[in-house]
Amino acid sequence: MGAEAAGRGMKWWGWGDPALEPQLPDHAVAFLRETLDVQGDRRPPVALEEVRLPPPAVPGGLRAALAEAAGADGVRDDHAARVLRAAGKSYPDLVRQRAGEPGAAPDVVVSPSSHEAVRAVLDACARAGAAVVPFGGGTSVVGGVEPFRGEFGTLVSLDLGRLDRLVGVDETSLTAVLEPGLRGPEVEAALGRHGLTLGHFPQSYEYATLGGFVATRSAGQASTGYGRIDELVLGLRCAAPAGDLDLPPLPASAAGPGLRELLVGSEGTLGVITQAALRVRPAPEERRYEGWFFRSFGEGTEALRALEQTGAAPHIARVSDEEETRMSLALAGEGGPAARLGRRYLHLRGYAGGCLAVMGWEGERDAVERRRARSAAILRRAGGLALGRAPGRAWERSRYSTPYLRDDMLARGVMVETLETATQWSRLHELHAAVRGALHAALEKRGTPPLVLCHVSHLYPSGASLYFTFLARQEPGAEIEQWRAAKRAACDAIAAHGGTITHHHAVGRDHAEWMTAEVGETGVAALRALKRELDPAGIMNPGKLLPAA
Amino acid sequence: MGAEAAGRGMKWWGWGDPALEPQLPDHAVAFLRETLDVQGDRRPPVALEEVRLPPPAVPGGLRAALAEAAGADGVRDDHAARVLRAAGKSYPDLVRQRAGEPGAAPDVVVSPSSHEAVRAVLDACARAGAAVVPFGGGTSVVGGVEPFRGEFGTLVSLDLGRLDRLVGVDETSLTAVLEPGLRGPEVEAALGRHGLTLGHFPQSYEYATLGGFVATRSAGQASTGYGRIDELVLGLRCAAPAGDLDLPPLPASAAGPGLRELLVGSEGTLGVITQAALRVRPAPEERRYEGWFFRSFGEGTEALRALEQTGAAPHIARVSDEEETRMSLALAGEGGPAARLGRRYLHLRGYAGGCLAVMGWEGERDAVERRRARSAAILRRAGGLALGRAPGRAWERSRYSTPYLRDDMLARGVMVETLETATQWSRLHELHAAVRGALHAALEKRGTPPLVLCHVSHLYPSGASLYFTFLARQEPGAEIEQWRAAKRAACDAIAAHGGTITHHHAVGRDHAEWMTAEVGETGVAALRALKRELDPAGIMNPGKLLPAA
Repeated sequence: MGAEAAGRGMKWWGWGDPALEPQLPDHAVAFLRETLDVQGDRRPPVALEEVRLPPPAVPGGLRAALAEAAGADGVRDDHAARVLRAAGKSYPDLVRQRAGEPGAAPDVVVSPSSHEAVRAVLDACARAGAAVVPFGGGTSVVGGVEPFRGEFGTLVSLDLGRLDRLVGVDETSLTAVLEPGLRGPEVEAALGRHGLTLGHFPQSYEYATLGGFVATRSAGQASTGYGRIDELVLGLRCAAPAGDLDLPPLPASAAGPGLRELLVGSEGTLGVITQAALRVRPAPEERRYEGWFFRSFGEGTEALRALEQTGAAPHIARVSDEEETRMSLALAGEGGPAARLGRRYLHLRGYAGGCLAVMGWEGERDAVERRRARSAAILRRAGGLALGRAPGRAWERSRYSTPYLRDDMLARGVMVETLETATQWSRLHELHAAVRGALHAALEKRGTPPLVLCHVSHLYPSGASLYFTFLARQEPGAEIEQWRAAKRAACDAIAAHGGTITHHHAVGRDHAEWMTAEVGETGVAALRALKRELDPAGIMNPGKLLPAA
Repeated sequence: MGAEAAGRGMKWWGWGDPALEPQLPDHAVAFLRETLDVQGDRRPPVALEEVRLPPPAVPGGLRAALAEAAGADGVRDDHAARVLRAAGKSYPDLVRQRAGEPGAAPDVVVSPSSHEAVRAVLDACARAGAAVVPFGGGTSVVGGVEPFRGEFGTLVSLDLGRLDRLVGVDETSLTAVLEPGLRGPEVEAALGRHGLTLGHFPQSYEYATLGGFVATRSAGQASTGYGRIDELVLGLRCAAPAGDLDLPPLPASAAGPGLRELLVGSEGTLGVITQAALRVRPAPEERRYEGWFFRSFGEGTEALRALEQTGAAPHIARVSDEEETRMSLALAGEGGPAARLGRRYLHLRGYAGGCLAVMGWEGERDAVERRRARSAAILRRAGGLALGRAPGRAWERSRYSTPYLRDDMLARGVMVETLETATQWSRLHELHAAVRGALHAALEKRGTPPLVLCHVSHLYPSGASLYFTFLARQEPGAEIEQWRAAKRAACDAIAAHGGTITHHHAVGRDHAEWMTAEVGETGVAALRALKRELDPAGIMNPGKLLPAA
C-alpha cells in the first residue's frame, strides 16, 4: 500500500470512485430546471493538470526528518497528492476544486504507519515550525481539512491511511482496538471476521475513516440504535505535541472531568488520534428497513418522539418534511406508473402531501421481530401508515450515493449544500421554521429562490437532529458569496433558536465563529487553554474549531 | 430556611438523622466479635462542645462582602456550623470527628441563594485570597469536602443548601432544570409533583445533593437502568472564578470537545455548579425487586454480563461474592428459623456457599412484566435460582441504612470502609482477586486480618463495577495509619490491574495521587491547564482531584 492509501482513488474534484459518475435521470433534471430556473447543461471540472497550486515549500531539514519518520515512500509532494488534499468535500470546496482554484494546498504529504512515527512527525514539525493538518478520508464538509497555514511557512498534510490495523478484539467485553486510518467498510470487514460490527454508518461511510469519526464526534445513519461515535469510544491513544495521551478503555469512571470527551471532537487541533478502543456488537442477523408515511411533519416527529421516549425506537428512524418528501418523490420519478399508483394510494388514505419516513431495525432475527412489533404499534397509534419494505430497500440502495448526485447537480449549475443541527423536542418546529425561513430569505434576496428540504434522523430522549438540504441556481462568478450568505443566515438562525451549530458535521473552519454562541466566552477560553497546553506552538490544524482570537 | 439548610440536621460525628441511632442486633455483634476478634463494647463520640477547632479567621472586608452576597443570616461561624463542615463521611473523617479532632475546619460558612450570589461570593473570595470549599450534602467519602486550605489564610465553606429550587420542567423534552442544593428526596418530591423521576438513588440519596451528584460524577443503585448522572446531565450553569459557563441542554452536538464532561466530575475545583438541566422520566408505576442466587460469583457475574450485553438488564442488578453473601446472611440472622429454612433450601438445590443477587425492574406495569420475563429467562439459563420478592423487599428496606450501621461498628471498635472500581468484563475477576488479596495482605501484616466483601452493582456493555467493603479490628491510636495502609494497598492493586481508581465515589483528597496512573502525565497537565484558566488563583477546593504538583 502506498502513500495514496487515504486518498485511495477518491475524485479530487468531487465524491467517490472516479470510475463512477452517475447522472440525474432526465425527469430529475427537468424538475430542477423547472423549480430552480437553472439551465441544466453539464460543465465538467478542469483537468487535474490545470489546477493551480503554489509551489511546495518544504525546508530540507524537515523533509529529511519526515522521511526518517515515515520512510522515503511515506513522503510525497507531487501535484496529484497535493491537489487531493487541498480541500474537503463541502460545496465551496468543490466549487473551488472544479474551477482548478483551491487557493492553497499542503506543501507535503506524510504517511506514517505507527504511533511512534506520528510522534516523530509531530516532533519534526514542532521543531521546524510547520503546521500539521491530520487527514483521514478527506470527507469533511465544514472545512475541517482546509490547508490553512496561519502564520506558518510550511503546511504538512498528515495522512493517516497507513494506520489501518485492527489491533485487537476483546470478545468478552465486546470491545475492539482499531487504528484511525481504517475506512468505514474496512472497519466493518475487519470486525466482520469476528462476527462483530461497529454499527457506524454515516453518509460518508465508504470513504471516511475511524479517526475522522472520532475526531469529528460523528453520528451515523443507525446511531439512534447503535449510539453516536462518542457513545462507542471507550479508550483513546493520542499523540499531542506536548506528549502522548493514553486513556484506558474503562466502562465508566468517576475520576474527574472526562478527558476522553476532550479528545473526541477535537478535530486534530489538539493532537492526532492513533488508536481507539470502541464498543462493538454482534453483527446483525437481520436488517429490516421499511417505509412509513405521515400526514404531516408534525405528526411524523411526534411519532418519533413517542418511539424514543418509550424506548421503542428503531436503529434507524427518519422522517422527511413535506418539501423533502415532494422532492424525493420527484427525483424517484413522479411520472412512472408505480409512482402514480403510490400517489393515488396515499391520496385515498388521506395522506396526500404528507411526509415519508424510513424505519430500520437491526439485530438477531427474534429481536428485530419483537422490536419492530413494538415500534409499529406506536407508529400506527401516532397516525403512521406502513408502506412495506420496498421504500426501505430503495433508501438502503441509495444511502451512500447522494454525494455522487450532488456532483452532477454542481455540474448543471445547481448550488446544493447540507447543514444540520439538533435541539430539544419542544423547540424542534420553531428551529425548523427559523432555518427554512432564513435560507429562503437569504437566497430570495439574491434572486435565487431555493428549495429547502429537511429531515429528522437522529433521536434522543430530549430532542432530535434536523438535517437540511438546500438547492438554488448558482450565481456564476459569485458562487462562494452566494453560499456564504445562505450559510451565515442559517447558522445565525440556529444560534438564535436554541440549536447546536452542528449535530454531526463538526466545526472545522465553517462553524468556528459560532462556537462562542454555543459554549460562551468562558467555554472558548477553556478550550484555548487546553490547546495551549497540548499544542504549545499551535501547529495542529490551525484555524479549525476555535474562533479567530 | 436558615443557613443550616444543607447540614439539615445530619449528625456531625456520623451518618444521618441524629434522632436515629440504630444498633447492630446481638447476633451480628457476636459475629463481628468472633470473626474480627473485637471486644465490641460501644464507645460514644465526644460531645460537640469538646470538638477542638482553631479559632475562625475571617478578615473584616471578606465578612462584609460575604454578608452582602448572601445576607447577614447567610454567614455563620459558630462552633456547630463549623464542626459539621469540618469533614465528610469517610472512615478517617468519622474517626477524627468522633475523637473531637477534625484537625481543621472552615473559618466561615456562607449560604448564597442564587447564581448571582454565588458569583459575588467567588469574586469576594478571589479578591481576599480565600479558599472556597463547595458543600452540598457533605456526604463525600473521599475527602471531597476536607477543609484543606493550602497556602490560603482563610477557608470559606460555600454551602449550597439555599439553592434548592426546581427551576422548570419541559414535559415534551422530558428535561428538568434543578438547583444544586436539592437533596435526593427533595429532587424526587419536586419532580414527583409532575409525575416524573430522575431515577438517581445512590446509597447517600437521603442526604446527598444534586450538585454533589453532578460534581462527583455519581452513580445510583438503579443506574444500570436510568444511567449514571453523567448520562442524565444535559446542560449546566457554572460560576467559575474566571467567569460563568452556560452550556445549553442540547440532546447531542458535534461542536468540539465536550465541555459539559469537563464540569461533570470537576468536584468544585473549577467552579460551582449553580443549575443543571437533566433528563427525567415518567415516575415508575411499579418497582419489582427480587432475590436470586448463583452457585458462585463467577456464575453470577457471567449472568449479569449476559443480561447487559443482550440489552435485557434490569434497572438494578447486583451480585455479591461468596464472602459478602456469607456476611449478609450472618447479619440477617443466621440462627433464625427462616434463615435455617433458607439455608436448607439452597443446600438441597445445590447452591450452598453461593452468591446472593438482587434484581429490580422499574417502569410501567407492562414494561416491568415484559422486561422481567426477558431477564428471568436469561438468568435461569445462566444458572440463577429465583428466590422471589422477599429478599428484594429486604434489600429495599435497608438500601439507604447501611451507613447508620457503620457508625455502630465504629463505636464497637471495628474499622469499616468501602472502595470501588470498574473494569472490563475480561479483567473483572483478576481485579477482584487483586484487591481482595491486597487488603488481606496489608491488614494481616498489621495483625488485624480483615473481612473483605464485594459486589458487582453497575453493568455496562464492556464491563462492570466492583464495590468492596472491608472490616477489621481497629488499631487503637493508629486508626488512620491502619486505614491508610489498607487503602493504599487496594488503590495500588486497582491501578496495577486495569481498574479505574473510582467508579462513583469520586477523587477528592484520597484518590488524587492515583490520577496520574489513570489519565497519565499529559492528562493531568491538561486538567491543570484547565484549572489555571477557570480558577487562576487556585482558590477552588484546593488539594482535591489533582495530585500534588
